[in-house]
Amino acid sequence: MNSLRRIDYMTEAWVTLATNDSYAVGALVLAHSLKSVNSTRPLVVMITDQVSSAMRNRLSEVSCRVQEVNVMDSQDSAHLALLARPELGITFTKLHCWTLTEFSKCVFLDADTLVIQNCDELFDREEFSAAADAGWPDCFNSGVFVFRPSMETYGKLVAFAVAEGSFDGGDQGLLNSYFSDWATKDISRRLPFIYNMTASASYSYRPAYKQFGKNVRIVHFIGSPKPWQASEASAFQNPVPGDHIAHWWRIFICYVLPYLSSDMSATLTPD
Amino acid sequence: MNSLRRIDYMTEAWVTLATNDSYAVGALVLAHSLKSVNSTRPLVVMITDQVSSAMRNRLSEVSCRVQEVNVMDSQDSAHLALLARPELGITFTKLHCWTLTEFSKCVFLDADTLVIQNCDELFDREEFSAAADAGWPDCFNSGVFVFRPSMETYGKLVAFAVAEGSFDGGDQGLLNSYFSDWATKDISRRLPFIYNMTASASYSYRPAYKQFGKNVRIVHFIGSPKPWQASEASAFQNPVPGDHIAHWWRIFICYVLPYLSSDMSATLTPD
Ligand SMILES: O=c1ccn([C@@H]2O[C@H](COP(=O)(O)OP(=O)(O)O)[C@@H](O)[C@H]2O)c(=O)[nH]1
Ligand SMILES: O=c1ccn([C@@H]2O[C@H](COP(=O)(O)OP(=O)(O)O)[C@@H](O)[C@H]2O)c(=O)[nH]1
Ligand SMILES: [Mn+2]
Ligand SMILES: [Mn+2]
Repeated sequence: MNSLRRIDYMTEAWVTLATNDSYAVGALVLAHSLKSVNSTRPLVVMITDQVSSAMRNRLSEVSCRVQEVNVMDSQDSAHLALLARPELGITFTKLHCWTLTEFSKCVFLDADTLVIQNCDELFDREEFSAAADAGWPDCFNSGVFVFRPSMETYGKLVAFAVAEGSFDGGDQGLLNSYFSDWATKDISRRLPFIYNMTASASYSYRPAYKQFGKNVRIVHFIGSPKPWQASEASAFQNPVPGDHIAHWWRIFICYVLPYLSSDMSATLTPD
Repeated sequence: MNSLRRIDYMTEAWVTLATNDSYAVGALVLAHSLKSVNSTRPLVVMITDQVSSAMRNRLSEVSCRVQEVNVMDSQDSAHLALLARPELGITFTKLHCWTLTEFSKCVFLDADTLVIQNCDELFDREEFSAAADAGWPDCFNSGVFVFRPSMETYGKLVAFAVAEGSFDGGDQGLLNSYFSDWATKDISRRLPFIYNMTASASYSYRPAYKQFGKNVRIVHFIGSPKPWQASEASAFQNPVPGDHIAHWWRIFICYVLPYLSSDMSATLTPD
């Protein structure tokens, strides 16, 4: 922690994204997890037009701002370029976080992450900081990253994406190609794995999880099924201390489900 | 590459370890893989007394030195301490590489690694350099590491091991606890993943493998089955370009098997 840095809580924010009501449920649980660890920074939720208005209302009650983004309707330079590369649409949606220029610094969190310990110290990091991807650790995982909103960076990212595409078809491949010196340039840009622990890591190297797991701050439920696609029964089937799916479900049951209308919770049927 | 550094090929070496004839077969394939990429540095093979004399002869033909190590018989300070912690025996065997003080710098390679491109540039790195473990990337994988033999370091490692044990029961947990600033201190000590690519990574994040796989220099067959435990048939079952198990078996069939007596190859029966 850099205690000399003047912290302007109003200009720093967590940011997440939900393009439909299912991911919005993830965003709601994430929002409550941030509250439960007493984070000092607010949450911005970026959504697209498929998110229902009932869900928007719920999101606006737990976040400082619900921001609709839709690059296809945008008037900026990305528009024309994108018409030629429609398959990049979802990738571009995440890039929109760079347009939130009323904030000086942000931490992006995927809607399938869960904050289990306060980690406001992430705002002491600089763009572009992220944790290693456990699948190929010279790449970062793009589910948690520190960035500085900037229309200039946004424009460069869009231009880069249009010119180069993404080696994995998503934002992670694109961001790794753009911030390609992440692995070698500056060790402070490498977030410890405890800030983006993929849930499967707790069994892929179990002794390390036993040794370091108590330090984990953010759990990331990559791949499928997402926690909201698992049944409640299976989430609590073999409850073990520190079970992250069960933690997600406790927040969901106590703070999210009571405020969902029946048609909203219907979107959660495991698919 | 630091081209100004005076390279004394005689004082730098690859080091591997085989405590039985099965791992010795891995060491033989590794030795031939180093030859096939024209490495300028010799290979030292550390063995224990279970390795047969026929196998020792084969090992001595492909390496610059076969060094028998056996901490339980040693006269050094580790001896007494170890009597109290016999379960650490195998872990200690690997630590013996620090006793090879006639070399100024070495790169340790597990016997289940395969060098597929020349990577003599590893000798430009400093102790202690290693690549991230894909299971928990804030730990390094101890299958490939750069070190400087030193009786002082050896003594400290042994003392540390006796006092602290190993969180995973093996050398990897021990070395990670001892070199605990690896993840945060100096980015040059982080070897790129291409120097210790766990074979499973080629499918755990396939797009990254497609993008960066051509740069891979060392493949590591962690876990089981080891290549020598797979049957020849299964190794060639679905041959795809860049298939690392098939690469291992080609070297084995062309350069190793013809020189094994029938009782030596009998140790390879899949278990
Ligand atoms: O249909 C989608 C897919 C993704 N996302 C957002 O993009 C992130 C990344 O996708 P996901 O988490 O599914 O990818 P993974 O982490 O499993 O690779 C999600 O967490 C959401 O924030 C979304 O809103 N709608
Ligand atoms: O019974 C054994 C076990 C291990 N080793 C040596 O120790 C290394 C580490 O063990 P292993 O590769 O089996 O562990 P993994 O990489 O699968 O974790 C091996 O490559 C060998 O060099 C050995 O000689 N005999
Ligand atoms: Mn995710
Ligand atoms: Mn190994």
